[in-house]
Amino acid sequence: MKIGVVGCAGRMGQMLVREIAATAGCTLAGGTERVGGPALGKDLGVLAGLEPLGVTAIDDPAALFAQADAVIDFTSPEATERHAALAAQSETVLVIGTTGLNPSQQAAVAQAATHTPIVQSPNMSLGVNLLLALVEQVAHALDDDFDIDILEMHHRRKVDAPSGTALGLGHAAAAGRGVALEDVWQKVRDGHTGARPRGEIGFATLRGGDVIGDHTVMFAGDGERIELTHKASGRQIYAKGAVRAALWARDKTPGLYTMRNVLGM
Amino acid sequence: MKIGVVGCAGRMGQMLVREIAATAGCTLAGGTERVGGPALGKDLGVLAGLEPLGVTAIDDPAALFAQADAVIDFTSPEATERHAALAAQSETVLVIGTTGLNPSQQAAVAQAATHTPIVQSPNMSLGVNLLLALVEQVAHALDDDFDIDILEMHHRRKVDAPSGTALGLGHAAAAGRGVALEDVWQKVRDGHTGARPRGEIGFATLRGGDVIGDHTVMFAGDGERIELTHKASGRQIYAKGAVRAALWARDKTPGLYTMRNVLGM
Amino acid sequence: MKIGVVGCAGRMGQMLVREIAATAGCTLAGGTERVGGPALGKDLGVLAGLEPLGVTAIDDPAALFAQADAVIDFTSPEATERHAALAAQSETVLVIGTTGLNPSQQAAVAQAATHTPIVQSPNMSLGVNLLLALVEQVAHALDDDFDIDILEMHHRRKVDAPSGTALGLGHAAAAGRGVALEDVWQKVRDGHTGARPRGEIGFATLRGGDVIGDHTVMFAGDGERIELTHKASGRQIYAKGAVRAALWARDKTPGLYTMRNVLGM
Amino acid sequence: MKIGVVGCAGRMGQMLVREIAATAGCTLAGGTERVGGPALGKDLGVLAGLEPLGVTAIDDPAALFAQADAVIDFTSPEATERHAALAAQSETVLVIGTTGLNPSQQAAVAQAATHTPIVQSPNMSLGVNLLLALVEQVAHALDDDFDIDILEMHHRRKVDAPSGTALGLGHAAAAGRGVALEDVWQKVRDGHTGARPRGEIGFATLRGGDVIGDHTVMFAGDGERIELTHKASGRQIYAKGAVRAALWARDKTPGLYTMRNVLGM
Repeated sequence: MKIGVVGCAGRMGQMLVREIAATAGCTLAGGTERVGGPALGKDLGVLAGLEPLGVTAIDDPAALFAQADAVIDFTSPEATERHAALAAQSETVLVIGTTGLNPSQQAAVAQAATHTPIVQSPNMSLGVNLLLALVEQVAHALDDDFDIDILEMHHRRKVDAPSGTALGLGHAAAAGRGVALEDVWQKVRDGHTGARPRGEIGFATLRGGDVIGDHTVMFAGDGERIELTHKASGRQIYAKGAVRAALWARDKTPGLYTMRNVLGM
Repeated sequence: MKIGVVGCAGRMGQMLVREIAATAGCTLAGGTERVGGPALGKDLGVLAGLEPLGVTAIDDPAALFAQADAVIDFTSPEATERHAALAAQSETVLVIGTTGLNPSQQAAVAQAATHTPIVQSPNMSLGVNLLLALVEQVAHALDDDFDIDILEMHHRRKVDAPSGTALGLGHAAAAGRGVALEDVWQKVRDGHTGARPRGEIGFATLRGGDVIGDHTVMFAGDGERIELTHKASGRQIYAKGAVRAALWARDKTPGLYTMRNVLGM
Repeated sequence: MKIGVVGCAGRMGQMLVREIAATAGCTLAGGTERVGGPALGKDLGVLAGLEPLGVTAIDDPAALFAQADAVIDFTSPEATERHAALAAQSETVLVIGTTGLNPSQQAAVAQAATHTPIVQSPNMSLGVNLLLALVEQVAHALDDDFDIDILEMHHRRKVDAPSGTALGLGHAAAAGRGVALEDVWQKVRDGHTGARPRGEIGFATLRGGDVIGDHTVMFAGDGERIELTHKASGRQIYAKGAVRAALWARDKTPGLYTMRNVLGM
Repeated sequence: MKIGVVGCAGRMGQMLVREIAATAGCTLAGGTERVGGPALGKDLGVLAGLEPLGVTAIDDPAALFAQADAVIDFTSPEATERHAALAAQSETVLVIGTTGLNPSQQAAVAQAATHTPIVQSPNMSLGVNLLLALVEQVAHALDDDFDIDILEMHHRRKVDAPSGTALGLGHAAAAGRGVALEDVWQKVRDGHTGARPRGEIGFATLRGGDVIGDHTVMFAGDGERIELTHKASGRQIYAKGAVRAALWARDKTPGLYTMRNVLGM
């Protein structure tokens, strides 16, 4: 399978190039960078710290989609909207790790997915997506004698809280219970809070150092606790998951898929 | 539902009496103790630290099985074999938390289960049984790029290692991978071990203080870890699970069930 | 050493009675309850679930202070103020675990401590007080390349956040750095927070189940984290610490001491 | 301060070059590689992935010691023995992270330290050395009502167990108690172990994934646990600690120091 990378010279793009080069069953179709960018014309392997791969960075996404079986996109919402249209036209698999799409950009992705398989998840790691599936299941199996709280820790440069993944875990827990997260969440506890309301889903946020991302979902009952934890120690997990998603989507019918479809859970 | 307790004056028996008294939908049918035991004739409520319940400890299990809809048994392998025969005769639900049955005792339980519903699990807590189900699932979803190790901690008086629950988690992980635990386990690491073999399932044991029981199953891959943890903080969880099992089994056909059936996973 | 307990029939009072009865080197001097209370005249051992100890609950604290070498007090701020005056008069050691004293009540305690040794800590456990000492030390040894965050979890009935112990740990960390906690704390993170300011001390709060009290102080730097954790699994730790404090204070000069003095750190 | 690096082109050597280049108050004095090595004559900055630093790799350690104020050595026991002699002759500070020295090599280091300050620790990270100091302190403050166990996790390629750092933590705990680790250690628990002996120091080992190194020392008593944890997420912590050690040793008298001296604990 020939896989292309849009935004191939950035940190995530380089990881994707390395992962594609290292994965059996796929080859690098090519990569794009912005018009006028300094990486244009350079070898993608060299840009990624590997030996030359014989493929150079170009500035024309349409040309990339024309020659690739799948394209992986961790860019910006605006660029992703354009890439989705190109994927639909060329019937190329698209894997989207870009986050922060507004409703109209998201609608454009959904429209494109009527023409070609698109896998989109806010977090592409296998582990996080497994955790999402487990949390929904456990929240469904246990009643609200068990209190659910979600803890996350990220590095000191992160500018928002709770993390998108923590909120995703909250939505999974709420879905397992058949409620809307926004009806039951408690994002901060400070001062006189009163006793914890039954059914609440709480969040707690730690920040510090260079922690890539730790998430724990707690189910605390009388006499026992279940804790489901994911710890990321390298950003290659997003590239690994994206490449696995591209390989999985190869023979699928058009549609908008998530990593949970890829995991089969 | 009328629930009886064999071995009603011991620590576990007292917890069961308290749990039955506190649970909506069930009443205490009675309880037995050994012939000649000091608790005979005393009120089960008083023995359990409650107000009197109007039911006294007797020494005849057959009489108890005759008047109960279900009986809960955390006694000894020998006693459990006799109780299983009584359950079969009286078609009473039997919930077995006793461990250490030899093959012939276990065969007797299986035989009895052709006549009445029996729920048997080496650990009756909801949380541990949930964990067992999750571990099997995750081991199945992830390939052996993820290394599985099982960590447990118990109090200083525990005399065996790894714990029965840790071994059960190992069997669940092995089942998820379609292998036999005995073919892949590594129970100790000391000295020059060499690199970790692919597919190994490892165990590590901590002992100290009055820890009731903590278990964690680790799935460690490149760049990410998933950890599934259960922490017991009170032994009432075994009583809670046993009572829930009795209520669940009420309308089931004869058969040998486990707590995973009770959880519906 | 003869040790008395004010408020001897409540949950904490009973634990203190059991701990004094079980500790070599001390005997139970007596105990008090409120005028008109139902426990008056009953044997303290029986009230605590032990065999009779031959000492009955009385309603006159002055009589108790007159016959005891030390008195342990986990009551109310108003009662503690009166007990401090009695300790000063009788030159009896006083161990105070009561919290929530207002400035005038605290001043009365300090005044009493000019006449007799008083040990006062908001949390009497050995472990928590060890943690306080370690946190101050580590915060002093590491510069603010290491980010400090404090995490705590308590049961669902707790009505305030962060816990008093978490705030105490924050004060210890701030003291180690030579700053005032109130100048650097961050008690909640929600929404667009911006990057973590250098020198900040953060708090995160979990609530659920019947967790007695878990506290972790994180020091997160580039490439490494140090985590100092205390987990309480039983409330007897407060009684154990109080009895140890009484034994320690026996031969001390008058003064207001804390558990860190008792620990020698 | 001018700092040199022996073994400057290997993974650790490159980290040291980057750390020296990034640290205020020091400059790179030079670096050596083996005679005939492929890096000889290349710029140390370029070898380390930086811009050129104008210093090239040479094969003569004596020349490096002559021009450096301090030299950092993470090489082999044989090479370290020779470097120690050169440090003594030139009265250059030497920082040794090499492990596995035999008694005669270690004696050579000690002899060299009579002429120049040498800092030697089996693990150069600030965090691990802080943990060693804390563990000794806590083991001293608590009696053996608290059970000590040491847990470590490393990546799947590690070939020995427990890790050197875990054993170092065990020695620190034993020192705090005034016993010899070898008299009280328990390195494996499997099968019928019997109850945990009072005073034992236990070890448990996990292996998996690409975990750089996690260590936890548990002190488990009745009703409470203290856990002291270090988690390494990047190997730059060893380079950071080594550079800090070199700066610290600058104005010290000759002697054999450890990182605990550097930390002032």
